[in-house]
Amino acid sequence: MLTVAYDGTGYAGFARQPEVQTVQGKLEEALRIVTREPVTTVCAGRTDAGVHALGQQVSFPVVEGFETESDLGRLKRSLDALTPDDIAIRGARFERTGFSARFDAKEREYRYRIVAGSTPPVFMRRFAWWHKGPSLDIPAMRLAADHLVGEHDFRSFCMAASAEGRTTWRYLDRVELLEESHLGEDCLVVRVIGNAFLHNMVRIIVGTLVEVGAGRREPSWVVEVLGARDRSAAGPTAPACGLTFWEVRY
Amino acid sequence: MLTVAYDGTGYAGFARQPEVQTVQGKLEEALRIVTREPVTTVCAGRTDAGVHALGQQVSFPVVEGFETESDLGRLKRSLDALTPDDIAIRGARFERTGFSARFDAKEREYRYRIVAGSTPPVFMRRFAWWHKGPSLDIPAMRLAADHLVGEHDFRSFCMAASAEGRTTWRYLDRVELLEESHLGEDCLVVRVIGNAFLHNMVRIIVGTLVEVGAGRREPSWVVEVLGARDRSAAGPTAPACGLTFWEVRY
Repeated sequence: MLTVAYDGTGYAGFARQPEVQTVQGKLEEALRIVTREPVTTVCAGRTDAGVHALGQQVSFPVVEGFETESDLGRLKRSLDALTPDDIAIRGARFERTGFSARFDAKEREYRYRIVAGSTPPVFMRRFAWWHKGPSLDIPAMRLAADHLVGEHDFRSFCMAASAEGRTTWRYLDRVELLEESHLGEDCLVVRVIGNAFLHNMVRIIVGTLVEVGAGRREPSWVVEVLGARDRSAAGPTAPACGLTFWEVRY
Repeated sequence: MLTVAYDGTGYAGFARQPEVQTVQGKLEEALRIVTREPVTTVCAGRTDAGVHALGQQVSFPVVEGFETESDLGRLKRSLDALTPDDIAIRGARFERTGFSARFDAKEREYRYRIVAGSTPPVFMRRFAWWHKGPSLDIPAMRLAADHLVGEHDFRSFCMAASAEGRTTWRYLDRVELLEESHLGEDCLVVRVIGNAFLHNMVRIIVGTLVEVGAGRREPSWVVEVLGARDRSAAGPTAPACGLTFWEVRY
């Protein structure tokens, strides 16, 4: 199992696809060079084009010749040297036989960064959504966020095409708003923790909370959005660049 | 007077030069388009190639047609629209006649970011120096940093060619080490505040402190370095990408 960080700006997402740059494609290419075998990986969360990860988890079967802790250290260093500088292998460890980075994940955390104001971010321009205009009403956004915590049908917060014929019930443990400064630029961070996520779910949650923060909707509107079970009831999908897949707990 | 932030990665420094991209070149080009006059600017600190700024200060004479507070707001917005997305105008204000962003500056602050460890930074790769290897001895670096505070001849901390025939005495108010997390990546930040700085001074200070942090020198070695009044006595010049010109006080 690898812990992988990546700047998603230059990638068509995590999942391998023909003819385009993907994080999985780069990782499996490096794994094949190091292990001299084709290796198929499984990740904890397939991030979309332009989405970043700090703690993506990637599992694959143990490869002959890489069976000890010191082999793992060598694997990590070799992969770091072979992958581009927008991908880093932060760690490598053994898990039990049959373990899956995807199916064994108990909790996933995403963080979404917003820079609000009349000045565009410079250092954060690839890692935050610039919400141009007056500052956002954070207390109102917090009230709205509270309505999303718990078990709900999040169909309104799922890309419509992906919701067909599947359950859209999910459990959110936390939806928090944090005020942070990164590289000297003030950010509003939406921290979302849950068991599993629907397609575009965090970005639609953020787009919806920003409707409230900008004063276009009341916090209680979120309750109506949940009840509608219809993508068109929610706010817009916030841009990919603000989103980071933060951490996975097993 | 403008407050300007820039990601220095793509620039040959602040100061205008023929045939290369510079921050001053981009700013003066935008100013000329907005004001329809050639405008010559003065900055608080000419940053080198690859060095960033959060609070660079840039002054120029008041231009006809831009004499009120509301003109200033218009000027800021127009400049933000005309400059590339790695330059942002964070503010614009009037100062007294004859004011100079350079000569009236009382105190300048620089911050230098280091990511130490075996994993290369991903999000911080353009904004920090990756010091590959074990973590740095921060208490030892703090002891070394304390020797630099106050008024000293910093000739050993100045690019040799720039020191000739000029005073190299400077006053440092603070040399602090802060442990911060930016975009999820742990950084060691060297915060340096002083009245004025020699060429490469902060980067040579950082390169010297890292010699101590890596255990290659004792903290008291810094006293010898100061006394030598010779560039070759100090540590290496730390890479440009870790440095940000943070703030100026008038």
